[in-house]
Amino acid sequence: MTFTLPDFPPLDPQLAARLRDRIDGKAKPPGSLGRLEDLAVQIGLVQGTETPRVERVQALVFAGDHGLNQDGVSAYPSAVTAAMVATFLAGRASVNALAQACGVEVRVVDAGVDADLAAHPGLIEAKVRRGTRNAAAEPAMTVGEVDLALQRGARIAAEAPADALVIGEMGIGNSASAALLMCRLAPAPLDECIGAGAGHDAEGMARKRAVLARAAARSDAAGPLEVLRQFGGLEIAMMAGAFLGGAAAGKLMLVDGFISTAAALVAVRAGPGLAPRLVFAHASAERGHRTLLAALDARPLIDLSMRLGEGTGGVLAAPMLRAAARLMSETASLDDVLSGRLGS
Amino acid sequence: MTFTLPDFPPLDPQLAARLRDRIDGKAKPPGSLGRLEDLAVQIGLVQGTETPRVERVQALVFAGDHGLNQDGVSAYPSAVTAAMVATFLAGRASVNALAQACGVEVRVVDAGVDADLAAHPGLIEAKVRRGTRNAAAEPAMTVGEVDLALQRGARIAAEAPADALVIGEMGIGNSASAALLMCRLAPAPLDECIGAGAGHDAEGMARKRAVLARAAARSDAAGPLEVLRQFGGLEIAMMAGAFLGGAAAGKLMLVDGFISTAAALVAVRAGPGLAPRLVFAHASAERGHRTLLAALDARPLIDLSMRLGEGTGGVLAAPMLRAAARLMSETASLDDVLSGRLGS
Repeated sequence: MTFTLPDFPPLDPQLAARLRDRIDGKAKPPGSLGRLEDLAVQIGLVQGTETPRVERVQALVFAGDHGLNQDGVSAYPSAVTAAMVATFLAGRASVNALAQACGVEVRVVDAGVDADLAAHPGLIEAKVRRGTRNAAAEPAMTVGEVDLALQRGARIAAEAPADALVIGEMGIGNSASAALLMCRLAPAPLDECIGAGAGHDAEGMARKRAVLARAAARSDAAGPLEVLRQFGGLEIAMMAGAFLGGAAAGKLMLVDGFISTAAALVAVRAGPGLAPRLVFAHASAERGHRTLLAALDARPLIDLSMRLGEGTGGVLAAPMLRAAARLMSETASLDDVLSGRLGS
Repeated sequence: MTFTLPDFPPLDPQLAARLRDRIDGKAKPPGSLGRLEDLAVQIGLVQGTETPRVERVQALVFAGDHGLNQDGVSAYPSAVTAAMVATFLAGRASVNALAQACGVEVRVVDAGVDADLAAHPGLIEAKVRRGTRNAAAEPAMTVGEVDLALQRGARIAAEAPADALVIGEMGIGNSASAALLMCRLAPAPLDECIGAGAGHDAEGMARKRAVLARAAARSDAAGPLEVLRQFGGLEIAMMAGAFLGGAAAGKLMLVDGFISTAAALVAVRAGPGLAPRLVFAHASAERGHRTLLAALDARPLIDLSMRLGEGTGGVLAAPMLRAAARLMSETASLDDVLSGRLGS
């Protein structure tokens, strides 16, 4: 494995104190903006400044297919992944609508879609392989494939021209893959990790549970990157790399829903210094997400019973990051107001 | 009283069914965008269309002073109201930072600030009186003043060039006034309606409670507009008028925190047809807000322990409205995706 885990220096406690003083000195009752104030302090710490700035935000939607779907872990065929990629690129998916509303740019990353995708200005070509192997029967990826996915994800996130990145995904079968990662790394009993994903009837859920039990029994992998290799998706591996590489480059990293959080879990277990650089956007309605968030000691910003993925929850939280940064950097202090020094 | 309550026709149940079908037919698992889907249906109903649109959003920050503050219901002097108005107009307050981040325009409405305010392009001059009378000793307003405030609020909101309006406020002492309105109209025991507002020590809280008990004992008013006259603020009366007039003009009306919700309560009790046209933006950390929301059967979108007012919570919810409208109007249906009819 040639992927190098970034070194995350601890966030500066003296800067934290200065940021807290700064926000407490603003022209408002101390603490009256609640968690937005905590977010402002976090952003300042990640950016290493008392005047943080979050303006440009990109949503990276990592797409990949899953060999697990050969055993029917999803109600949808794998071809839907490529069809949704086309929808993202046409600007017609849910994430595009939310992104337009929130001033976020959408880029799709082909991590491992099982189709040949035509070049497009919104598409970042990074395909490692056309889908993973079937994790119920064999390791989903080789060491080399995981390595490549991590490297490419890290580079894409580090080079993305944005202050903050939403890490989203599309991949039929990927809630099954994420359930296995959560089970092994949270850790949590497998059954608590399995939800309906894009939707299942009782028979479909029983099939999903049986396939995942078979996969989990196949390997006792415990280390985060080996668990990723055994059970992960190419898009999930690339997302884990993106969390690590983007944060190492000083970007705020927005975690979306269940699959994005599973990728973040892999990344945090591999590089614990990543954790304070993540912003958890929302609590998904997908079963298991709250337990997964708890395993990361994470408290999301939004709770609207969403469970779509694509980065939709992360996109919706982007204006909150911008707001928190502006609050810290641009608003008047109480002294400014009392002395009439408000500028124009 | 010459203010005429608007007539709110019931929202069209057939359109509701069509909107629900439309959102269920989108290229995503049904229901997977949770409460954002409900919001999209609500916006379509209020606008009377299957292709709703929320782009331009304004925050109207109604400012006024309170005679109650002569008895020390706030830890701050009334002069802070005018100082904060100057901060809004200079673009340096919290609401300005959040509004910049969320693409919302801020306008300040002088409903009853106890100061002479210089003209400013961001200021709407609508002063009824320099502050209310002391509601602990006498009715806060005359019938004519309430009437004028309601009329002006309704006209300002109806004429505001925006698809949606955030109704925010600034007024030292107005959490005391709002507590009295809530107590009488929710209704709820007075003590449950009294919070720390902009901040109080134990002595300050005891004083606030004693003054409000005196005020409540002075009048047994029960009708919404008479309760408003006895205990309300000029900015609260104008906000109630704004909710009614803006909604009657087809605008989405965003309710902010405790004081804004108290104004919405007055408006809904006066004109119950208003209720389905309101969007409750956030759950404030101000004591009493959750009970107040429950009295209106309201479920807010955001819960970040904010309690500043100014419209900050409403502003933060604005991108969610835009997102919901775009979701309904612009995203592809499942049929579009399956048939490859994606346009562009």
